[in-house]
Amino acid sequence: MKIRDGRLKKPLSKSFEHLNSSIGFDIRLAKYDIAGSIAYAKALKRVGIITDKEMKSIINGLETIQLEIENGKFVPNPENEDIHMNIEMRLLELVGTVALKLHTGRSRNEQIVLDERLYLIDALKNIKSNLKNLLKSLYLKAKDSRKIIMPSYTHLQQAQLISASHLLLAYYRAIYRDHQRLLDIEKRLNEMPLGSGAVAGSSIGIDREFLLKELGFISLTKNSIDAVSNRDFIIEFEFILTSIFLTLSRISEDFIIYSTQEFGFIILPDELTTTSSLMPQKKNPDSLELIRGKSTKIIGNLFSIITLLKALPYSYNRDLQEDKPGLFESIDWVLVCIDVMREIIDGFSFNDSRIKEVIKGSKDYIFATDIADYLVQRGMPFREAHQIVGKIVSFSESNKKRLSEIKIEEYKKFSPLFDKDIYKVFDPVKSVNNHDVYGGTAINRIDEILNEIEEELKNI
Amino acid sequence: MKIRDGRLKKPLSKSFEHLNSSIGFDIRLAKYDIAGSIAYAKALKRVGIITDKEMKSIINGLETIQLEIENGKFVPNPENEDIHMNIEMRLLELVGTVALKLHTGRSRNEQIVLDERLYLIDALKNIKSNLKNLLKSLYLKAKDSRKIIMPSYTHLQQAQLISASHLLLAYYRAIYRDHQRLLDIEKRLNEMPLGSGAVAGSSIGIDREFLLKELGFISLTKNSIDAVSNRDFIIEFEFILTSIFLTLSRISEDFIIYSTQEFGFIILPDELTTTSSLMPQKKNPDSLELIRGKSTKIIGNLFSIITLLKALPYSYNRDLQEDKPGLFESIDWVLVCIDVMREIIDGFSFNDSRIKEVIKGSKDYIFATDIADYLVQRGMPFREAHQIVGKIVSFSESNKKRLSEIKIEEYKKFSPLFDKDIYKVFDPVKSVNNHDVYGGTAINRIDEILNEIEEELKNI
Amino acid sequence: MKIRDGRLKKPLSKSFEHLNSSIGFDIRLAKYDIAGSIAYAKALKRVGIITDKEMKSIINGLETIQLEIENGKFVPNPENEDIHMNIEMRLLELVGTVALKLHTGRSRNEQIVLDERLYLIDALKNIKSNLKNLLKSLYLKAKDSRKIIMPSYTHLQQAQLISASHLLLAYYRAIYRDHQRLLDIEKRLNEMPLGSGAVAGSSIGIDREFLLKELGFISLTKNSIDAVSNRDFIIEFEFILTSIFLTLSRISEDFIIYSTQEFGFIILPDELTTTSSLMPQKKNPDSLELIRGKSTKIIGNLFSIITLLKALPYSYNRDLQEDKPGLFESIDWVLVCIDVMREIIDGFSFNDSRIKEVIKGSKDYIFATDIADYLVQRGMPFREAHQIVGKIVSFSESNKKRLSEIKIEEYKKFSPLFDKDIYKVFDPVKSVNNHDVYGGTAINRIDEILNEIEEELKNI
Amino acid sequence: MKIRDGRLKKPLSKSFEHLNSSIGFDIRLAKYDIAGSIAYAKALKRVGIITDKEMKSIINGLETIQLEIENGKFVPNPENEDIHMNIEMRLLELVGTVALKLHTGRSRNEQIVLDERLYLIDALKNIKSNLKNLLKSLYLKAKDSRKIIMPSYTHLQQAQLISASHLLLAYYRAIYRDHQRLLDIEKRLNEMPLGSGAVAGSSIGIDREFLLKELGFISLTKNSIDAVSNRDFIIEFEFILTSIFLTLSRISEDFIIYSTQEFGFIILPDELTTTSSLMPQKKNPDSLELIRGKSTKIIGNLFSIITLLKALPYSYNRDLQEDKPGLFESIDWVLVCIDVMREIIDGFSFNDSRIKEVIKGSKDYIFATDIADYLVQRGMPFREAHQIVGKIVSFSESNKKRLSEIKIEEYKKFSPLFDKDIYKVFDPVKSVNNHDVYGGTAINRIDEILNEIEEELKNI
Repeated sequence: MKIRDGRLKKPLSKSFEHLNSSIGFDIRLAKYDIAGSIAYAKALKRVGIITDKEMKSIINGLETIQLEIENGKFVPNPENEDIHMNIEMRLLELVGTVALKLHTGRSRNEQIVLDERLYLIDALKNIKSNLKNLLKSLYLKAKDSRKIIMPSYTHLQQAQLISASHLLLAYYRAIYRDHQRLLDIEKRLNEMPLGSGAVAGSSIGIDREFLLKELGFISLTKNSIDAVSNRDFIIEFEFILTSIFLTLSRISEDFIIYSTQEFGFIILPDELTTTSSLMPQKKNPDSLELIRGKSTKIIGNLFSIITLLKALPYSYNRDLQEDKPGLFESIDWVLVCIDVMREIIDGFSFNDSRIKEVIKGSKDYIFATDIADYLVQRGMPFREAHQIVGKIVSFSESNKKRLSEIKIEEYKKFSPLFDKDIYKVFDPVKSVNNHDVYGGTAINRIDEILNEIEEELKNI
Repeated sequence: MKIRDGRLKKPLSKSFEHLNSSIGFDIRLAKYDIAGSIAYAKALKRVGIITDKEMKSIINGLETIQLEIENGKFVPNPENEDIHMNIEMRLLELVGTVALKLHTGRSRNEQIVLDERLYLIDALKNIKSNLKNLLKSLYLKAKDSRKIIMPSYTHLQQAQLISASHLLLAYYRAIYRDHQRLLDIEKRLNEMPLGSGAVAGSSIGIDREFLLKELGFISLTKNSIDAVSNRDFIIEFEFILTSIFLTLSRISEDFIIYSTQEFGFIILPDELTTTSSLMPQKKNPDSLELIRGKSTKIIGNLFSIITLLKALPYSYNRDLQEDKPGLFESIDWVLVCIDVMREIIDGFSFNDSRIKEVIKGSKDYIFATDIADYLVQRGMPFREAHQIVGKIVSFSESNKKRLSEIKIEEYKKFSPLFDKDIYKVFDPVKSVNNHDVYGGTAINRIDEILNEIEEELKNI
Repeated sequence: MKIRDGRLKKPLSKSFEHLNSSIGFDIRLAKYDIAGSIAYAKALKRVGIITDKEMKSIINGLETIQLEIENGKFVPNPENEDIHMNIEMRLLELVGTVALKLHTGRSRNEQIVLDERLYLIDALKNIKSNLKNLLKSLYLKAKDSRKIIMPSYTHLQQAQLISASHLLLAYYRAIYRDHQRLLDIEKRLNEMPLGSGAVAGSSIGIDREFLLKELGFISLTKNSIDAVSNRDFIIEFEFILTSIFLTLSRISEDFIIYSTQEFGFIILPDELTTTSSLMPQKKNPDSLELIRGKSTKIIGNLFSIITLLKALPYSYNRDLQEDKPGLFESIDWVLVCIDVMREIIDGFSFNDSRIKEVIKGSKDYIFATDIADYLVQRGMPFREAHQIVGKIVSFSESNKKRLSEIKIEEYKKFSPLFDKDIYKVFDPVKSVNNHDVYGGTAINRIDEILNEIEEELKNI
Repeated sequence: MKIRDGRLKKPLSKSFEHLNSSIGFDIRLAKYDIAGSIAYAKALKRVGIITDKEMKSIINGLETIQLEIENGKFVPNPENEDIHMNIEMRLLELVGTVALKLHTGRSRNEQIVLDERLYLIDALKNIKSNLKNLLKSLYLKAKDSRKIIMPSYTHLQQAQLISASHLLLAYYRAIYRDHQRLLDIEKRLNEMPLGSGAVAGSSIGIDREFLLKELGFISLTKNSIDAVSNRDFIIEFEFILTSIFLTLSRISEDFIIYSTQEFGFIILPDELTTTSSLMPQKKNPDSLELIRGKSTKIIGNLFSIITLLKALPYSYNRDLQEDKPGLFESIDWVLVCIDVMREIIDGFSFNDSRIKEVIKGSKDYIFATDIADYLVQRGMPFREAHQIVGKIVSFSESNKKRLSEIKIEEYKKFSPLFDKDIYKVFDPVKSVNNHDVYGGTAINRIDEILNEIEEELKNI
C-alpha cells in the first residue's frame, strides 16, 4: 500500500525513485519520529479519534520498532521513501490496520520539522559538551604555560613578547563565544510544530499544549505555514557550526606553522601525526590539516542550505529534503573535530628552549616597542619615538648588530633621551609584564583571567 | 611624515598603493574613530601622558575634524592609507605636534575594531527600526486581510484554503525571528577593545574601565590577542543580514508568482513597478526581482568574510582590511530593501475576485482534505480515507467533473459512509475555520495571534 | 606492518583515526589505483628495480584484487587509511614481500592525483553521454512542439508569443554549452602525473613516457611540485557540474511554475510526480523540486573545494583529502539528475488548450508590441509608438476591454495612423512569425535551427 | 519623457528608485553601448526604418556623447535608470526626435548582453596581457634562481631539496593553465546577441550578419530566449578570475610564510611592504596579505552570481541587473593583483645564506629519502628501506645527532647494506640532481623546462 496509489497511476521511474528516496539519511531521525508518533497517538486518543486500546496497540508497536532499530533489526525499504513511511509501514505489519489511523490530521510536512527539532536539541547538547571539554583543556594548558614566553605575531611577523597562556586564552575566548551562540539558538529550536497539519493547521482540533508537554518543548510555533516552511533554525545551526570550525581552522593554522621545523615552537604527540609513504623522516601534522580541510565541507554545507532557501516560495517544497544530508554531516564532523582538537591541546607541548632560541634570533627587534615606550616615558611624543626606533632598527639591520649590542653613544645620537638604563628593556619577562592591563599579557593579568574562567567553567 | 619612513626606505609601488588604501571605504568610520580618539585623549590625560591643556587641544582639533566631515569639507588623502592616519594627519595640521602624542600606546589594530563595533551598534539600531516598521506593516495588512480566502500552496500546488492573513503572518514570524537574532548579537558587539594595543595589551596602563564608560560599552574584551584577531561579530552580523534577505527573497518569490497574469492574486502599486523599453503593455515587478537579486550579493559577502577568516593565523593580518567593504554594502542594502519591502506590503492589494475565480477553477480539489476529514469523522482510518479521496479525485479528473458535481450515488460507490451532507464541505469559509488550533488558519485563531502581536510590537 | 611504525611510536588516537581514514570514500578509486600500479610495476621492471618474474607476480596480485573488488569480496580495512595502502596491504598478503617493492620511488601524493585524473576522464565520458541524451530529447520534443504557441515571459510577466519549441531550444543551447565546456577541460585532465614522486620528481629515473602510453594519457605534467599540489582540474570540473545544475535548476523552476494549476501549461507524467501524505488530491512535481534542491548541494561542494584551495601553501597538504567526497557526490548526482530531467522532457506534454485559454485571458496585451510595430511600419518613431501603446493598454485596463475589442474610432484617437487592418495583428501565428530573424521564434527560423541541431548532434 | 509614463501612472518611490538605478555602475559600459547603437543605426538604415540622413545624425550624436564621456563631461542622470536610457535621453537632447527611432525593434534585454560581451572581450585581453607579464617574470626569476637550493614542503614540513626555480615554475604552470582557460572562454563570449529583441527575436527583420561584422563578432547567438536569459559566460568568466586568485592566494601564502623571521627564505622589497603604527620594527608583507584577502571578494562574487542564476526562471528577470557590480569589481582587482604579484616576483630576493642555514638546521632529515634510495639501489624492497630509515631518524632524534653524524657502525646495525659511501648522500646538489626525470627538480630538467617555456611565451 503506497500513498500514491489512490491518486497516481504509475509507479516512480527508477532514476526518480533514487532521487526521491531519503531513507538513506533520514533513518537517523527514527527515534525522534517514533517519539513524535507516540505523543501524537496519545493526543489522538484525547481528541477521540482512537480508543484507549488502539492507542496502546499503536504505542506498543512503535516501541517495538524503536527496539528493532536499536538492535539493528529494522530494515528500511527504499521504496517507502522516507523515515515516516518506513515506520508507518512497519507499524502496519506489527499492529494491523489501526496503524492507518495514526496519520489522521497529520502531515509529513510537520513531522519532519518535529523530527529535525528534536534531533537538533540533542545534537546541541552533545556539541556543548564537547566544546566544554575543549574549553577545559585550553584552560588547563593555559594554566600550565604561564611562564613560557613566546613571540606574538601580527602579519605573521614577530610583534611583541607574550606569555604562551595568552595565546591559548585567545583561542578560549573564541570557542567560548560559540558556546554562547548555542545558548542563543536554543529558544528558537524549542518550538513545537505538531498541529500545523500540511500547511493550514490541524483540522481535528489536536491539543497542541498537550503535545508540547509530552515532547518537552518550551513553546508552540505560532503559524502553521511558517512552521512547515521555515528552516532558519537549521541555517542558524549550521552557521554556528561554521563559526566553530572557523576557530578550529585558525588554531590549526597556527599550530601547523608552529610545528614546522623553522618555527619549532610546539611538539605534537605521535598519536596525532602521521608519516609519509615515501619520506620516512616525516612527522606530519595531519590531524590539524584534516581539521582545517574539513572546515571547508562545513562551510560548503552552510552555503548549500542558504542557496536552497533563497527565493524558495512558501510553504513546503520538496527541495527541503536536501536540508538534512549536509546538516547531519556537519554535526558529525564538528563533534569529531572538537574532540581531536581537544586531544591536540591536551597532548602538545611547547618547545621552550627552541622558542628562547627564536627570541634570541630576533636581534631584539621584538623589544622595539619597549624602546619606544622608554622614550615616551621620558616625554617624547609617541609618533616621534616610533620614527626614531624605526631608524634604530634600520641602523641595526645595516650594521648587523642586535639592538642590545648598539652602544649607548650610538643610541644617544638618535635621541638625547637615551641613557644607560635603556639596556634594561631587553628583558623578556619585564617586556611581557609591561602589558599590565585587564586582558593584557602581563602574568598577573593572565592569572586574573584564569580565575575568572575557573568560575565561568562552573556555570556552563 | 609617514609612519613607514623611519623603517622602510622606499615609498609604495603605485599598484600596491591602490591595493593598500582603504580610505575609500573606511571614511564612513570617521565619526566612530573620532569618538574613540576623544575618549582615548581623556584616558591619556588620566594616565599622565598628556596634560589637560594638550588634551583639550586634541579634543578641540578632533571636534573640528568631525565638523569638517559633516560639512563635506574633509578631503581624505589616499596616500594616508586609512581613516586613522587621515584623521591623525589632519589633526597634526590643526593642532601641531601634540597630535603626535595621541597614538601613544595605541595601535590601529585595536582602533579599527573599536570603530567597527561602534559602527555596528549604530547599524543594528537602524536595522531593528526598519524591521519593526516592516513588522507593523505586515501586522496591519494581515489585520485588513482576515476575510480574504485564498489557496495555500505546497510544492507550488494548491493545497488548502487559508485566510490571506495567515500567509502574511507567516512572513511576520520569520522577520520577527531575525529581529530577535539582532538582540542576541548585541552583547557580543558591546565589548570594548581599547587597551589591547597592537596585540599584547596596552603598555601604558590605560584605564579601560574609564574608556568603557566614556564610549558607552557594556563589557571589556578579555584578551588582547582575541580583541585584535576576532571578527566573528562581523561574520555573525552578516549572517543575520543574510537571514533577513532570505526571508525577503522568499516573500519576493511569492509575490512575483502571485502577480503573474496567470495567478493574478495581487496588484502591485505603480510606484513599485516598471515597464519595458520594448513591450509597452508590461507592468513588471522589478522591485521584487531586485530584492531577490540583491539577496545574492549579501550571501556572497557573507561567504567572502567566512572564507577570509578560514585558517587565518592569529593575530591581526592585513587580510582583515577586506572585512569592511562587503559589510558596509550589505548593511546599506538591507536598510534599503527592508524599506522597499515595507512599501510593497503597504501598497499592494489582494485581487479578491480573481482569487475567487481561481478557487472555483480548482475543480474543488482544494476541498479534498475536507472530504477525507468527513470520512474520518465517520470512523474511517485516515490512510484509507486518503486512498479513497485520491480515487475520487482521479475519477473527477477522468470524468471532467468538479468534486461538488459528483453525484451522491457515485460518492456512495467509493464509500457507504458518504451521505448528502457531504456537499456542505464545499464551503470556503467553513474549510478555513476547520483548522481551529493555535497557529492554524481559522479566523478566530488568526485574531488570537493578531492580539498577541499587538502586544509583541509594543515591546520591541 | 604500518608505514608509521618506523618513525612514530604511538598508534593513532581513535578520533583522529576516524578523521584520518579516507577508505570509506576513496574505495571507488580502486580500479584506477590498480591500473596505475600495474603500469608502474611494468615501469619498475624497465628501470631494473624488479625482475620480470616479480613484475608478473605483482601484476597477477593486482588483477586478483581487481576481481575481488568487482565481486564484492574485497574488504577494506579502515586502519589502512586509504585506497593505496589497502591495496598494498592486500597485495602483500597475496604475493608476499615482493609487494613491498612496488612503492619504490613512488608517493601517495602522485598516486592520488593519477587516480583522480583517471576517474575524472571516465566520469567525463559518462556525463557527456547523459548530456547528449538530454540534448536529443530536447531536440525531439522541440521538433514535436513547433506549432504550439505559448506566451514567453520576461519578469515572469507575459511578454510575446512564441512557439513552444523556441523555449525548448533555449534550454538546448545552455546544455550544449556545458557539453562544450567538458570538451575544453579534457586536455587539462589528460596530463600524466606519475614520476613526480612526493614532490621533487622520481629519483629512480622512471620512464614517464612509457607510463603515459600505458595509461593512455595525452601529455605529461611538466612540474612535479605542481603535479602533486594542483587540484584546479577538480575545481574546474566541479564548476562545470555547477553550470549544468544551474541550467537544470532553471528548467525545473520553469516547469514547476508551468505545472501549477494557475498556469497549467504542462502535464507531468505520473511516474515523475508524487502525492501528499495528507492531501489526497495533490500531484506534486517532486522530481523537479528535487533537482532544483540538489543543485544547491553541487554549488556547496564547489565552494568547499574553492575554500579548501584558497591560500593553501604548496605543495601537498593533507587538507587535499577533502577534495574527493564532494566531487564524487556531485558527479553521482549530476548523472542521476540529467537522467531524470531527460525523463521529464520525454514524458511531459504541453496542455495546448489550456495555453490557448491563457492567451485569450491576456486581454490581447501580449500583442502590444505587434501594435507598436504596426505604428512604426507606418512611420512613427518607436519611442512614440511605445508611449501610445502604453496609453492604449491603460485605456483598455480602465475600460475592461480587450485590445481587440477597442473600436477603430477609439484607436484613431490615440493616433491617426491606425486603420481597420489593425485587427489583423491579433493573430497568434502571425505574431510568432513576425520574429523572422536567425535565432527568432518564427516557425521557419525554428526549422532552420532544428536542421542545424540535427547535424550538431551527429558530431558530439 | 520616461518610458514608464505611457503605461504607469505614478513615479517610482524613492527607495525603489535607489534600488532600481544601475547607472552608478553600468556607466562603464557606455562605450560599448554606443558602439552597439552606431552599428544598430546602420542596420536600421539598411532595413529602411531610418533614412541615411537620420542615420548620420544619430551616429553623429552618439559620437558626440562618446567624446563627452571621454572628456568627463557626460553627467548621467540617476532618474534615467541605466546606461541605455541615459544615452538615449542625451541623444534626444543632441539630435532631436530622430533619436526616438533608434530603439525601434530593439530591447534593453539584448542591449545589455551585447554591452557585457563587448566589455568582457576587452577585459579578457587586458587580463591575458597582465598574466603574460606575470608569466614572464616568473620565468625570468626562475632562470636566475636555478642554483639556489631550498627545502620543498609537504604538510608544511621539510620534504626534499629542490632548486628554487622548481617552485617558481610550479607557480608558472598554474598561472599558465588559467591563461589557457581564458582562451577557451573566448568562443563563448564571441556570440552576437543583437536581433534577439526583448525575447522572441527582432520583428523588423534586422540584418544580424551585418551587425556581427560591424561589431567584430565571430558567430551569432542561435536562440533569442537564450540570448537574453543566459549569463553563463559571466559565471564562467568569474570562475576563471577565481581560479587565478586561488593561485595568487597560494603563492601569497607561501611568500608570507617564507618571509617570516623564522623561515627568512625571501626578502620582500621595501616598496611592497609596510610597517606598524605601533611597532616600529615591523616590516609587514601587506601586499601579499591583501592579495590573499582580496581573493575572498572574488570568490564571494562568484558565489553571488551562481546563487543569482540558480532556479531563475526564463527569460530575462530584473535580478540580472545584479550580474554587473561583482563582475566589474572582480575584474578590476584581478588586474591590480596580478600586477602587484608581478612586482613582488620581480622585486623579491632569495636569502640564500639563510636558506643554507635552515638546511643545516634540518639535522639532515631532508636527506632521508636519499638514504632510502641508497638502500633500494642495494636491493632492499622500498617499504623495508622506508621502515629502516624511519627508525634511523627516530634514533637520531633520541640521540640528538644529525644523520650525517651517525657512525657507520651504527648505520650497519640498522642494515648490513650500509657502507661508508652512505655519507655521500648528504650533498644538496647531488640530492637535487637525483630527481632526474621530465618535470623533476634536477637542474638539467629545469633547464629543459625553461627552454620549453621560452617557446611557450612566444606563442601566447
